[in-house]
Amino acid sequence: MRKLPFDKEKLEEIAKKYPTPFHIYDAEAIRENARRLLKAFSWNKGFREYFAVKAAPNPELMRLLKEFNFGSDCSSMAELVLAEKVGNVGDAIMFTSNDTPAEEFVKAWELGAIINLDDITHWDFLCKSVGASTPADFKDRIMCCRYNPGPLKGGNAIIGKPEEAKYGFTREQLFECYAKMREAGVEHFGIHTMVASNELDPEYIIDTARLLFSLVAEITEKTGVKFEFVNIGGGIGIPYRPDQKAMDLDYVGKGIERAYKELVEAAGLAPLKLFMECGRSITGPYGYLVSRVRHIKNTYRLYAGLDACMSNLMRPALYGAYHEIVVPGKEDASQTSVYDVTGSLCENNDKFAIQRLLPVLERGDIVVICDAGAHGHAMGFQYNGKLRSAELLLEKGGDVRLIRRAETLDDYFATLNF
Amino acid sequence: MRKLPFDKEKLEEIAKKYPTPFHIYDAEAIRENARRLLKAFSWNKGFREYFAVKAAPNPELMRLLKEFNFGSDCSSMAELVLAEKVGNVGDAIMFTSNDTPAEEFVKAWELGAIINLDDITHWDFLCKSVGASTPADFKDRIMCCRYNPGPLKGGNAIIGKPEEAKYGFTREQLFECYAKMREAGVEHFGIHTMVASNELDPEYIIDTARLLFSLVAEITEKTGVKFEFVNIGGGIGIPYRPDQKAMDLDYVGKGIERAYKELVEAAGLAPLKLFMECGRSITGPYGYLVSRVRHIKNTYRLYAGLDACMSNLMRPALYGAYHEIVVPGKEDASQTSVYDVTGSLCENNDKFAIQRLLPVLERGDIVVICDAGAHGHAMGFQYNGKLRSAELLLEKGGDVRLIRRAETLDDYFATLNF
Repeated sequence: MRKLPFDKEKLEEIAKKYPTPFHIYDAEAIRENARRLLKAFSWNKGFREYFAVKAAPNPELMRLLKEFNFGSDCSSMAELVLAEKVGNVGDAIMFTSNDTPAEEFVKAWELGAIINLDDITHWDFLCKSVGASTPADFKDRIMCCRYNPGPLKGGNAIIGKPEEAKYGFTREQLFECYAKMREAGVEHFGIHTMVASNELDPEYIIDTARLLFSLVAEITEKTGVKFEFVNIGGGIGIPYRPDQKAMDLDYVGKGIERAYKELVEAAGLAPLKLFMECGRSITGPYGYLVSRVRHIKNTYRLYAGLDACMSNLMRPALYGAYHEIVVPGKEDASQTSVYDVTGSLCENNDKFAIQRLLPVLERGDIVVICDAGAHGHAMGFQYNGKLRSAELLLEKGGDVRLIRRAETLDDYFATLNF
Repeated sequence: MRKLPFDKEKLEEIAKKYPTPFHIYDAEAIRENARRLLKAFSWNKGFREYFAVKAAPNPELMRLLKEFNFGSDCSSMAELVLAEKVGNVGDAIMFTSNDTPAEEFVKAWELGAIINLDDITHWDFLCKSVGASTPADFKDRIMCCRYNPGPLKGGNAIIGKPEEAKYGFTREQLFECYAKMREAGVEHFGIHTMVASNELDPEYIIDTARLLFSLVAEITEKTGVKFEFVNIGGGIGIPYRPDQKAMDLDYVGKGIERAYKELVEAAGLAPLKLFMECGRSITGPYGYLVSRVRHIKNTYRLYAGLDACMSNLMRPALYGAYHEIVVPGKEDASQTSVYDVTGSLCENNDKFAIQRLLPVLERGDIVVICDAGAHGHAMGFQYNGKLRSAELLLEKGGDVRLIRRAETLDDYFATLNF
C-alpha cells in the first residue's frame, strides 16, 4: 500500500476549499527527489537536468525545480513562454523540438536557448528564420543535434524502434551538420539523443550515455568539433505497479561515471557536461489525483464511478496504464471487492482501473490515484464537455496552495462566439 | 481519390484569412446527408435523430442540424448548455449520461430533457437531486433506461463487449426500474441501448432494433408500461478507408421497418417512435482538417511534417485510425513517394499516416486530412503546449464562416495566475 503525504482528514479539509477532483503535488517530496538526482551525478561538474515541461507544465512546479538549477526542456511556443516566465532563459532552456515552425526558432533564439536541431534541414531553416549568417551571429550560441541511432539501438516499449521514430539525425547527417555549423562560426556544441520512455532498466540509460560518449569521440576526431555537453535525454521510468522498483539513480550515476572515465576522460575529451531531460521521474510519483466516489453501480461487474474522468488523467484509458489507487481512511480495511473504477466520460475506456481489488467503496469516499504528477493534468482534454481540474501544491508545513484553478464552462466556450 | 468540396485555389484563398491548420465543414453535404437519413426512416412517423454532441460540439453545426429537427444527445453540463443555446430544449434533448453528477440531472430536468438513466440507482438519485416525489412532479416527464444486453449481444470492435462495458442496466434491473417509475407517476417511457461504435455492418444496427423491439414487448407484457419510443443509439460507422463502403441507410431503414412490422405492429405496440443518436455518420465525412507541409525530412524514412498535429485530430495517434489524405493541386500527380505524415507534437505517435503512398510533397503544400468532421476537433488536447485550431463552415455558395476561433496562448494560460 502506497504511503500518502496526507490522510483522510487532511484531504477533507482541503476539499472544503477546493472541491474534488484536483491534482495535488507534494513539494517536499519533489525537492528530495531533485536532491537525489543531483547527488547521483555530482561527480560531473556540469551536470544539469532540464525538466521536460510537457510532463507538468505548471510554472509553480518549474519554479520549485529552479531551486535546484533545473533548466527547462521545451518543445513548443507555450513551453518557451512558460520557461521565460519562471526566469529560465539562455542556457537554462533546451529547445528540443521537431517539425519546428519558424516562429518557435525565433523565440528560442531571442531567449538565447540551447537549440537542439531535430533534422539536418533545420540548420538552414533556423538561420533563415532568425536571420543569422555571419560568424558574429553564432558566436555565443550553443547548438546541439538530436541523434537517432536507428537500428543501432534496440528501442523501448513506449518510444518504439528508433528507425521508425520521426526524431533526429542519422549518423551521416550528424557529421555533415556539425561540420557545417562549425564552418558558419558556431563555437559551442552539444549532442543529444532520446531513445527511452518510462524505462526502468538502468542499463538502458547507461548504454545510451556510452553510445553518445563514443559518438562524441568519433565526431571530434573526424570533424574537429569539440563538445561541451551530452544530453542523454530523459525516459527514466517510475514504478507505477506495486511489483516494480524505482530506478536506482546512484547505480545509473556510477555506471555513467565509469563510461565517462573510459570513453571521455581517457580520450582527452573531458570536461564534458552531462545533461538530462527527465520529466516523469521528477514529478510523476509526487502528484496525486484526488477524487470522490459519485456512484456505485452493480451490473455485470461492480463499478465505482468517480467525479474525476479521463480528462484529468488519460494514461489508463490511453495506454491501459496501471495507477495505484488508495482509499484514505480505508487503508486498513480488507480489500474484498473487485471494481472497475470509472469516470463519467461517454467513452467506455474511461476507466482508471479494471477489475481492481479494493476495500468496499461507498458514495462520498475519497479515492486517490497515485503517480499522476507527470503526463497527468498535462494530457487532459475537454472531450464530451469535460473540464480540467485544479492543481494544488502541498507545501512542507502542510499548507496548500492553488497553482492552477479548475476550468469553468466559460473556459470551455471561450473560442465560440457564444 | 476522395473528391473535395474545394480546390487548391479556394483553400489558398481561405488560408489568407484563416491560416492553416483549420477544420472546415461542408454545410451542404451535411444537409444532404441529413435528408438521406430522414428519408430512410420516413416510414416511422416519429423518427428523430439526436445528434451526439460530443462528436462535434459546435453550436453552428447543431443549428444547421436543427433545420432537420435533429435533437441533441447530451452527456455533460457543457453539452446541455450548448443544446439550450441553440434552442434544443424539452424533448429535443436526450440526456444519455453515465456516472452522472446531481447538478447535471438538475439542469437536464430544468430543460425538460428526456432523461435516459444509466443505472438503476440513478432513479432515486435523480428524484432526490431534482426534488421530485409526487405523481404531479413526473406527469409530463419522459423517462428512459439504457439497456446493456451483456453477453446477449456480441459486441463491436471499438465499443467492446457489452458485459465489460460500464453502461446501462441488466435485463432484470430494467423490469424493476420501469415498474418503479410507473408507480411514482411517470407516464411517458422510452428505452435505449448503444452497443455499436463506428459499425459498418447494417445487420448489426437492424439486430439492435430487433432486440429493443422484442424487449419492449416483453416489458410491456410483464409490467404494463407502454413505450413511446425506442432509441437504438448511434454507432453507424463511416468508410475511413478507400476499400470500405458507407452503410446503406435505405437498407437499414427497410430492415428496421420489417422488424417493426413483425415485432411492434403485430404485437399491437404501435405507434412507437424510432430515435437514433448518431454523431460520426452525421458530420464525420463532411469535415476536413486543412494543413500545410512545414518540413520534409529524410532519415530512416521520409517524413512530411505538417503544421497540424494530434491536438487537431487524435484518432490516428490514439487508435491507429486511417484517414485519407488528399493534396489539392496534386490530385493528378502520380503517387510515387512513401511518407510518414507527422505533426510537431513531442510524441512519436503524432503521425497522421504511416508509410502512406502520396505524390511528392514540398514545403508549403496544402494537405487535407479527410473524415475529420467528428471526433476530430472535439477530442483535441493541449498537451505539449499545442493549441487547438479554428473551425470554419463552408456554405452552399462557397462563402466561408468562422464558427470557432483558433486558440491563443492566452487561452492556454487562462487557468494560471500568470
